[in-house]
Amino acid sequence: MTTTGPGRPRKQQAVRPGATARDEILDAAAELFTSQGFANTSTRAIADAVGIRQSSLYHHFSTKDEILGELLGGTVSTSLAFARAVKDGSEETGQELDPAARLHAVVLFDGLQLCTSRWNLGVLYHLPEARAEVFQPFMAARQELRTIYGDLGRELTALSDADPGLGDTAFRLVESLINLRADGLIAMDSASTTADTVMILAGLRQKIQAVRDASSELISRYGEANRRGEASESALAAESA
Amino acid sequence: MTTTGPGRPRKQQAVRPGATARDEILDAAAELFTSQGFANTSTRAIADAVGIRQSSLYHHFSTKDEILGELLGGTVSTSLAFARAVKDGSEETGQELDPAARLHAVVLFDGLQLCTSRWNLGVLYHLPEARAEVFQPFMAARQELRTIYGDLGRELTALSDADPGLGDTAFRLVESLINLRADGLIAMDSASTTADTVMILAGLRQKIQAVRDASSELISRYGEANRRGEASESALAAESA
Repeated sequence: MTTTGPGRPRKQQAVRPGATARDEILDAAAELFTSQGFANTSTRAIADAVGIRQSSLYHHFSTKDEILGELLGGTVSTSLAFARAVKDGSEETGQELDPAARLHAVVLFDGLQLCTSRWNLGVLYHLPEARAEVFQPFMAARQELRTIYGDLGRELTALSDADPGLGDTAFRLVESLINLRADGLIAMDSASTTADTVMILAGLRQKIQAVRDASSELISRYGEANRRGEASESALAAESA
Repeated sequence: MTTTGPGRPRKQQAVRPGATARDEILDAAAELFTSQGFANTSTRAIADAVGIRQSSLYHHFSTKDEILGELLGGTVSTSLAFARAVKDGSEETGQELDPAARLHAVVLFDGLQLCTSRWNLGVLYHLPEARAEVFQPFMAARQELRTIYGDLGRELTALSDADPGLGDTAFRLVESLINLRADGLIAMDSASTTADTVMILAGLRQKIQAVRDASSELISRYGEANRRGEASESALAAESA
């Protein structure tokens, strides 16, 4: 049955994840953009994939660019919120966190997002089309994430003879998970191996297990705070600052 | 003057690098694909950018896909020829080459290609459109290059406690130069820093200068053999084998 009560029936039963029509549109667009290409996908095709009329789609998004902008933003927003919390963590919690564990945790968390998101939207980062003004919020968020990687890297390497560009290398390695995924080469441990690789670059091969333990504790604590609504509040505070 | 002798004059003077009309078409297509997007570029626009008629373009390439396939192939062919020569080097020259210098040289050589090519065509690797059958030669060449990285990495780490996935990490780091370039962040030393990073991952931080010296000697020797026409012959021999 495709009728779901009074009113005009939807063309087909909703089969996409997402609580709202808006979420379903984003999911359908993500699938089409990554499988057929952005330029080759019309808003009509997106509406058809959701089972709604094109005019209904325009109720939620005024352009195809707006949909892409929101999807691209979604690839960094969760990781950026975590990276901000990790960066500000020592002040907020009043305890000094191990710099190695902080960078390891950001790499692992960000890497997991890129490996496990429903669609591999990172392949759209370097579309010429994604350089337009409408994507500035995404570009700014990605740049802020890159900057936090750089800061965490310098904090760690200030104590050693490791390359001060460690954070930038870490950022490159994490984003290369997008390419690995596009090539069908992602494994269960791709994100954690990437985080370990960054620690080896920092000269911490011998201490890797201790760093891993502290890193996963950091991620668990964040998850818990998030469930209590604290982490998202502090992320919002950082955003409005 | 745009007339260059008898016959139909070209619409405009050739301003693109390349000895032949075919090269000019490839150069114009590379510029348009990377700046406007592949799907947004018509063969008509490419012909216009060269200053020839669309029908003349079809004399050289029967489809836009064929142009993209040739451009993508060009991003790996030079590096693959070098990587093959390095891989087979010890047998051909009868002398054992240092495994660290071999991997360093392949990373540096490949990285330099990606950083200094006229257009940053690597941004087109993960276009959904580039997964079609017509791009199989490119995909196969890129896969062979990845395999050589993996082999050279294992050869090096067999002697140490370094990660046996070193070659794969090196391949990811080199290709991330494409992203760095798309973000406008390439520096003069990006390729050599990448090669050094791989050596640090291999645990060779203390020996880096010796590895660099042996690596650049290897690249020079290849360049010389290439000028004498030897390297390209051996590359061809490997191709037909």
